[in-house]
Amino acid sequence: MTDAATNMRLKLPIICFTLEIILIILFGAIVQYDHETDAKQWHSKNHSDYENDFYYRYPSFQDVHVMIFIGFGFLMTFLQRYGFSSVGFNFLIAAFALQWATLMQGFFHGLHGGKIHIGVESMINADFCTGSVLISFGAVLGKTSPVQLLVMAMFEVTLFAVNEFILLSLLGTKDAGGSMTIHTFGAYFGLMVTRILYRPNLDKSKDKNSSVYHSDLFAMIGTIYLWMFWPSFNSAITAHGDDQHRTAMNTYYSLAACTLATYGMSALTAHDGKLDMVHIQNAALAGGVAAGTAGEMMLTPCGSMIVGFLAGIISVLGFKYLSTILEEKLKIQDTCGVHNLHGMPGVLGAIVGAVTAAVATADIYGEGMADVFPKVASGEVDASYQGGIQAISLAVTLGIALLGGLIVGFILKLPIFGAPPDTICFEDSIYWEVPGEEAPHDGQLTAVNTEETEKLST
Amino acid sequence: MTDAATNMRLKLPIICFTLEIILIILFGAIVQYDHETDAKQWHSKNHSDYENDFYYRYPSFQDVHVMIFIGFGFLMTFLQRYGFSSVGFNFLIAAFALQWATLMQGFFHGLHGGKIHIGVESMINADFCTGSVLISFGAVLGKTSPVQLLVMAMFEVTLFAVNEFILLSLLGTKDAGGSMTIHTFGAYFGLMVTRILYRPNLDKSKDKNSSVYHSDLFAMIGTIYLWMFWPSFNSAITAHGDDQHRTAMNTYYSLAACTLATYGMSALTAHDGKLDMVHIQNAALAGGVAAGTAGEMMLTPCGSMIVGFLAGIISVLGFKYLSTILEEKLKIQDTCGVHNLHGMPGVLGAIVGAVTAAVATADIYGEGMADVFPKVASGEVDASYQGGIQAISLAVTLGIALLGGLIVGFILKLPIFGAPPDTICFEDSIYWEVPGEEAPHDGQLTAVNTEETEKLST
Amino acid sequence: MTDAATNMRLKLPIICFTLEIILIILFGAIVQYDHETDAKQWHSKNHSDYENDFYYRYPSFQDVHVMIFIGFGFLMTFLQRYGFSSVGFNFLIAAFALQWATLMQGFFHGLHGGKIHIGVESMINADFCTGSVLISFGAVLGKTSPVQLLVMAMFEVTLFAVNEFILLSLLGTKDAGGSMTIHTFGAYFGLMVTRILYRPNLDKSKDKNSSVYHSDLFAMIGTIYLWMFWPSFNSAITAHGDDQHRTAMNTYYSLAACTLATYGMSALTAHDGKLDMVHIQNAALAGGVAAGTAGEMMLTPCGSMIVGFLAGIISVLGFKYLSTILEEKLKIQDTCGVHNLHGMPGVLGAIVGAVTAAVATADIYGEGMADVFPKVASGEVDASYQGGIQAISLAVTLGIALLGGLIVGFILKLPIFGAPPDTICFEDSIYWEVPGEEAPHDGQLTAVNTEETEKLST
Repeated sequence: MTDAATNMRLKLPIICFTLEIILIILFGAIVQYDHETDAKQWHSKNHSDYENDFYYRYPSFQDVHVMIFIGFGFLMTFLQRYGFSSVGFNFLIAAFALQWATLMQGFFHGLHGGKIHIGVESMINADFCTGSVLISFGAVLGKTSPVQLLVMAMFEVTLFAVNEFILLSLLGTKDAGGSMTIHTFGAYFGLMVTRILYRPNLDKSKDKNSSVYHSDLFAMIGTIYLWMFWPSFNSAITAHGDDQHRTAMNTYYSLAACTLATYGMSALTAHDGKLDMVHIQNAALAGGVAAGTAGEMMLTPCGSMIVGFLAGIISVLGFKYLSTILEEKLKIQDTCGVHNLHGMPGVLGAIVGAVTAAVATADIYGEGMADVFPKVASGEVDASYQGGIQAISLAVTLGIALLGGLIVGFILKLPIFGAPPDTICFEDSIYWEVPGEEAPHDGQLTAVNTEETEKLST
Repeated sequence: MTDAATNMRLKLPIICFTLEIILIILFGAIVQYDHETDAKQWHSKNHSDYENDFYYRYPSFQDVHVMIFIGFGFLMTFLQRYGFSSVGFNFLIAAFALQWATLMQGFFHGLHGGKIHIGVESMINADFCTGSVLISFGAVLGKTSPVQLLVMAMFEVTLFAVNEFILLSLLGTKDAGGSMTIHTFGAYFGLMVTRILYRPNLDKSKDKNSSVYHSDLFAMIGTIYLWMFWPSFNSAITAHGDDQHRTAMNTYYSLAACTLATYGMSALTAHDGKLDMVHIQNAALAGGVAAGTAGEMMLTPCGSMIVGFLAGIISVLGFKYLSTILEEKLKIQDTCGVHNLHGMPGVLGAIVGAVTAAVATADIYGEGMADVFPKVASGEVDASYQGGIQAISLAVTLGIALLGGLIVGFILKLPIFGAPPDTICFEDSIYWEVPGEEAPHDGQLTAVNTEETEKLST
Repeated sequence: MTDAATNMRLKLPIICFTLEIILIILFGAIVQYDHETDAKQWHSKNHSDYENDFYYRYPSFQDVHVMIFIGFGFLMTFLQRYGFSSVGFNFLIAAFALQWATLMQGFFHGLHGGKIHIGVESMINADFCTGSVLISFGAVLGKTSPVQLLVMAMFEVTLFAVNEFILLSLLGTKDAGGSMTIHTFGAYFGLMVTRILYRPNLDKSKDKNSSVYHSDLFAMIGTIYLWMFWPSFNSAITAHGDDQHRTAMNTYYSLAACTLATYGMSALTAHDGKLDMVHIQNAALAGGVAAGTAGEMMLTPCGSMIVGFLAGIISVLGFKYLSTILEEKLKIQDTCGVHNLHGMPGVLGAIVGAVTAAVATADIYGEGMADVFPKVASGEVDASYQGGIQAISLAVTLGIALLGGLIVGFILKLPIFGAPPDTICFEDSIYWEVPGEEAPHDGQLTAVNTEETEKLST
């Protein structure tokens, strides 16, 4: 028998069914197809079926979708006995968060006659918001129950939508790839949550808070998918045409440069020149995070590479030196090191975005200015003002993330959500039926290796 | 030496080469490029290269392709010692089935001057038909030789094409995502085959009919890919424009709701509140199956979520309670539980499709009716008649699947195909060279762990 | 402590930082956005955003990208203790090679006012060139340091660009999927390098030069991704419209036929009729290699299947019989058997391409001739001359690859790059921090299996 406190027999069904039934009722009441997914509306206008935005967004959506479910899910399987939970809880909270995000973002992005209209662009945005929750999941990985995670997701999605609304709608900030809205927000929110959930006796589970050979290989599946599809992530909701094209390419070069910086730094900071899988799995992705704001701007390929290069260096240094300090001095137990992969590179990306915006000129952007900086193009603000707005947005994001994480952290501390005890963190078997070992080779019927089988069959 | 009966030395080459040579001859005789893949025909018309259907179907095709080869292949790797066979036989029979399906479907879908014309749409359809065979493979997994599987594939593809022709061409049924043609057909065909191949002494291999930790993680790769790309699957051959867009979105929400239902039900039905990987790996996908028919209709996002929610509940209940009954009372040994993932959710999807079709009105669909229900739009039939057709189609599918599975099951019982003995089911080593264990750590030259290597190199 | 010679503490950072800084400087000096990625240029013309080539090339690019990083990376994880290096060094050298290839190919493909213009097509080409380097990596896998690999990549990319320039620009050769430029070049270059780096005492590491059960499954992830996306690879840079469509379809059927041939041949040549994972992982892909040149031509589906069928047979025979001869007689230690997967099938593909080109007629291609054979369409040369050019191109490729591999092999022999000693080849721990085994089950705090945990929690 499992301890009653961590038994999910009733807790998990109650929260899953309650949340899903609420979602179904709200979707029934206020969600409708938009003009591109509704049969009547689409056909009431005069256009070719090929002009449907499905064809220009859906491939990017699927790449983002892979990042959310395979990328984040497998990246976190690096722990030796937490693979089921990493992939499985990632799956659960993402499936919830994308539905809830549809409502929250739809509400803030503007209703149409009291209704939320949805299509592929809202699906991408819902996945983006989900990504932010999964970043926070990385900070608390191994120390939380699935019920806690669903509660966290519910609040975080809501606050994400608020912050996104303030930035994109009220301030007119540009942040297509979410250096601020997704990465900075998710990281600092999660860091504050894990700070509040600080476990002084976590070293009782320290033997399991590490990888084994195969778990590191599974994690590389996540890493490589995130790396490959990050160009699609950053470009998924930028304007059509040159904007999507340029954003994808900038991100591609930023990541490539980041990878070389990561390998170099990992060897340089190692005690005997050996590469550390933690760096490769994480820091090599920092170039994608850091290109999240400026990726759609005229950053130039060279500029993208410089950004990626710096992000890789910062990220490895964070893993090597800062994580210990955060844990020992600030009591922040950041399981996946999201501060190094999403936090600092997200802040770097925001700063790069502010600077790049501030130096934008009509000479560089031409008529394309209207897509990238509509307010600058219309003369409403000048470029340096836009840069200032970008910088303010970073501060706003940090503020909402930290304050939100503080409050949500205390909510999650309530002793009703079935959190694991200090002795059984980073361990699947507390929430999962874990299969036994391989069939023993002790008898005729269970022979599992070649020689024995061959003997049998002769 | 392997037992002569299961030795594939001659059997497998003979069937592989014979089938492939027949395929090559038939392709040479009757298969041609269609007007979009033929250089002369394409350029003889006045259109932009961008209008080629390649650009509007190929991304969906590739997602479907990943589901067939990675999704199905890895989903079945959950068995502890059957990973080579799961991925490898999946690969083999899919590679055969897609070629054979091109011929069978091409023949029934209508010849052009005695020739079959092929392009991206026929490739998607061939992959769809292959999916049906792989569902049946799931029912007999671990208990069949590759030769049996190829023979099964040959007959099943043929019967699939017959059933598909009756439904789509003769009856005018709508089933874009194949709740009936693919899932119901593949599941009940496979269940009947495994019934005929019933092994009373299968418990001699029961030690291997289970998962181990890493095999469950490999299986999650399959699950997550199927889950992510199911929106592409259901929308791959719907009409362009709003139809593809809507189908993808309906499926996305159906799957998300299904996932929450699955986690809730898994914890609720567990003996100690622990999640069961079998449920997560399978039942979370039932929402895609159940949205296979109605996904292209105006099901609404809310309706899609209700369908997915019910599918998840039904599927977990099936795994928990029905599988044992099927095995003990009906002698149906369903290795992967395809009845729970494809059978019941497929039937549910067919019923939902019939109801949704029956209530379709011009007020809801507008001019879009012509894409979804062409016969209703043209006034040939009314909506309730279309609903009736949909319901009849389910019965036809069940009949052909069960009768076909019966006959093919008896064919596969012929003792010439090298089926494994009861004692060596669910075991790779009967058909594969299985590598030994890791290099022993017993000497200077084979040191494989860090400490030993370090000692060596000093 | 690691041996000073193989310690990467300084060597790897120095080469990574030096190369990346040179790349950044060169990109800053001579690389610019092309007219489809530059905001000003794109908007200075009168066209729809939907006409941007991003929408017609980027999905193919992402498929190619997955092949390069997941496909090649995981295909090479078959070795029992070389998974970190396989995926990790693949990642490192690909990230470098794609940047360097942008410069080298840009330089040879033609400058615009002294500048290289880049967009999605150059990204595909850079990934293609990277693929060639990764093929060579397969030949030397397990026997080289990351520094050696980066040096090899630098020279190989350069020579690749030279050979590609001679073929595509000077001779007017057609080779969209790179049977010659990518596969033949990469294979023979790598084979010559490994010949020069011949290790007479490599059998000291022979215990690790083999797979284990899970490493073979990881490798199948690579295989299946390469197999699925090869249609996208071969069609990624062919002309728009029927050409891309036809190339993808030809490759699809070539691979399917190749797979059946591979399974048949593997069983036929096995000592006891058991399938060999090495064949499945590799030879099943030969159909994609062999369709690399003729895939865009009017090869017909039947013709494609014949090509794939032959490629599969040749490739298995190579693995079974030729590899040993190469090693024992010619002292070529080809770890992954790239001669069998890329070398011979590449040569076959080149020959098929030459023959198919030589028999092209206006009656078959119609107006589409201008896309496939522009010089034949314009009357500049006749078809048989084009066929001759194709054959000459194979000879040129072989010559440059072998000569280049010879020179680069000697460079890599310099004792400054930290190559592993004969006793520690095929072993991650020489360059990587390798995690320990799973947490021991020896105490209350480290319980990791279900029973123990349950006891604890009661």
